[in-house]
Amino acid sequence: MPMELPGKIAIMGGGSWATALAKIVLSTQDSINWYMRKPETIEEFKQWKHNPNYLISVRFDTERITFFSDINEAIEQSDTLIFATPSPFFKQHLEKVHTPLKDKFVISAIKGLVPEDNMLITDYFAERYEVPQKNIAIIGGPCHAEEIAFERLSYITLGCVSNENREIISNVFRNQYLKNSYSNDVTGIEYAAVLKNVYSIVAGIYHGMKYGDNFQAVFICNAIEEMRNFISAVHPVERDITDSVYLGDLLVTSYSRFSRNRIFGTMIGKGYSVKTAQIEMEMIAEGYYGTKCIHEINEKYKVEMPILNALYEILYERKSPFTTVRNLTEKLK
Amino acid sequence: MPMELPGKIAIMGGGSWATALAKIVLSTQDSINWYMRKPETIEEFKQWKHNPNYLISVRFDTERITFFSDINEAIEQSDTLIFATPSPFFKQHLEKVHTPLKDKFVISAIKGLVPEDNMLITDYFAERYEVPQKNIAIIGGPCHAEEIAFERLSYITLGCVSNENREIISNVFRNQYLKNSYSNDVTGIEYAAVLKNVYSIVAGIYHGMKYGDNFQAVFICNAIEEMRNFISAVHPVERDITDSVYLGDLLVTSYSRFSRNRIFGTMIGKGYSVKTAQIEMEMIAEGYYGTKCIHEINEKYKVEMPILNALYEILYERKSPFTTVRNLTEKLK
Repeated sequence: MPMELPGKIAIMGGGSWATALAKIVLSTQDSINWYMRKPETIEEFKQWKHNPNYLISVRFDTERITFFSDINEAIEQSDTLIFATPSPFFKQHLEKVHTPLKDKFVISAIKGLVPEDNMLITDYFAERYEVPQKNIAIIGGPCHAEEIAFERLSYITLGCVSNENREIISNVFRNQYLKNSYSNDVTGIEYAAVLKNVYSIVAGIYHGMKYGDNFQAVFICNAIEEMRNFISAVHPVERDITDSVYLGDLLVTSYSRFSRNRIFGTMIGKGYSVKTAQIEMEMIAEGYYGTKCIHEINEKYKVEMPILNALYEILYERKSPFTTVRNLTEKLK
Repeated sequence: MPMELPGKIAIMGGGSWATALAKIVLSTQDSINWYMRKPETIEEFKQWKHNPNYLISVRFDTERITFFSDINEAIEQSDTLIFATPSPFFKQHLEKVHTPLKDKFVISAIKGLVPEDNMLITDYFAERYEVPQKNIAIIGGPCHAEEIAFERLSYITLGCVSNENREIISNVFRNQYLKNSYSNDVTGIEYAAVLKNVYSIVAGIYHGMKYGDNFQAVFICNAIEEMRNFISAVHPVERDITDSVYLGDLLVTSYSRFSRNRIFGTMIGKGYSVKTAQIEMEMIAEGYYGTKCIHEINEKYKVEMPILNALYEILYERKSPFTTVRNLTEKLK
C-alpha cells in the first residue's frame, strides 16, 4: 500500500448513513471528499450547508468538503473510500467505476449483499476490484444515523482482518459520541447486518398485528439463534453472537422507531400489500432484498430458518402474512 | 408424592402476576384456591368480580375461586402451590406457615431472592421446608402480567429437574395465548430473573438521561454477557443465554413500558433521589433488593460485573448516577 493510512477520505453516497458518517469523519479529519450521484443535490447542499434530503438538522462546514458527482474522479482523488450506498443501488454505482481500486483502502458501511450475485460487499471488492483483504474494512453495530445526528453516545464495530490497519482506521471514527469495538469477523458481521434487517421486518409485521412486548422478546431470541446458526454454517469461526455488532444491531433495528425495515414490516402487519408498503416507504427497506439473497444462499447450506422462510413466503410467494406469522409462532420457543 | 398432580391448585399472592396466573390457571382448571393476605381485598374481589388493586380489567367467575386469607388453611386445602408474592415480602408470608409443605408441589413464580439469606426461592423451599427438588418448579420467561390480561400471545418457560412432573404441570399453563418451553436449569432461571431486574433499572437510568436506542442496544448486549458470566460461575451447566427465559426476559423488562424496574431507573435517571423514586413507585422495584443480594453473593464468586457494581454504588453508596453511568460507558463494547 503506497499511501499513508487513512490518507484522504471519501464518503461514497448521499443517504442518511453516508451523511452521519461524513459528520463523524469531519469530527476527526480536516477535510473530506464526498461523492453524490446527483449534481443538483450537491448544489443544494452547498447552498443550504446541509444534506437537502437526509439528516437535515446536521449542518456542515462546506469549505471542508470537496464534492464529486463523478465517481471516478472521487476515487482518483482519495485514498480511503467509505461506501455507504443502499445495497440495492450498489452495483449501479460500481458499474461506472473504471478507476482501479486495488491501491485504495475500502470501508464498507453497506448493510446488505450485492443483489443477484448474492455476494458480500467486501468479497465483491476483493474479487472484482482486487482490493487486498487487509485493505478492506467494515463498519457494523447498532448505529442509527438519526442518533449520530443528535450526537447520542453510540458504538460501532470495525471489522478488518488486519489488526494494524483496523487500529489506524479507528482513529477516524472515534470521538466523544462514538466508541469503537474491534473484530476480525468481517464475513460474520456482514451477514449479521443483512439478517438483522430481515428479522426487523418480521418484528414489524408482528407489531403491526398487535402482538405485544412479551412476544417481541421471544421473537428476538429466536431470531438471534437463527442468525447464529446461519452464520456459523456459512462462516464457522469463534464468535459471540451476543456481541453488540450482532445482537445489538438486531435489537436496535427491531425495537427502534427509526428502523425503516421495521416500519416496512409494520405496514404489512397492518394490512398493506407488500407493493403498497414499498411505494409508501420513502427509503429502501433493505431487508426486502436481503430476504431473497439469504434464501438463495441457504439453498446450499440448508440451515433451519423458519423466520427467514416465513418472510420469504410473505414477500415473494404472496402467502398471507396473518396465517404465515401465526404458523411461525408454533416454531418459536 | 401421594396426590395426583396437579391436584388442587392454589395461587399464593394478590399482586398483578398472581392475578395473571390465576387467569391462566382458570383457563385450564375448573376451580382454584387463592390466598391473599388481606380479608378486605378478598371481600372487594368477591363483590366486584375482579382484583380491586391489579389487572382490574380481568373479570373472574368468583364461583370457581375459593379465597383464603389464612395461609395455612390455603396450603392445607391445596396440592400445588403457586407462589407469586414479591420477593421482598416472601419471608413475611412464609413465617406464618406451620403447615408442612413437603408433600406439596411448589411452583415459584417469584422473580427474586430471599432477602438477607440471599437464597434462591426454590432452595428455600427445599432446605427449610423439605420439599423434594423434583416437586419444585419455576415459571420464567418474558411475561408481563399486563399482556396476559389482554391475552396477547406469550411464552413462559417451566423449569423443573423432573421432566415428568414438568410435563404434567405444563398442562396447567398452556392455552391459546400462552405457550410453554421447558428447562432443567432451575437455578440459572432464578438468577436470570433477579439479574434482569437489576439491568432493567440501569437501562431505565440511561433512558432517563436521554441516552438513545443505539446505546440501549449496546447496553443490553453487555448486560446479557455479564448475566451469562455470573450464572456460569454460580451454576456451571450447559445453557444458551439467548433462550427466551434468559435473554427474552431481560429484553421485555428493559424495553417494555410495563416494567416497574425500568420506570424506577428512569426516575433516577431524570434526577429523582433513590428514596423519592421508591416512594413514588406504587409497586416494588424488585431489582433494588436484587442488586444487594447479587452484590453480596458475588463477593464469593468475584465475577467481573461492572454494570451490577455501578448500580450498587448508585443505590447503596449514594454515588452520583450521572458520573457512575457515564464511567460505565467506558467499560462497554
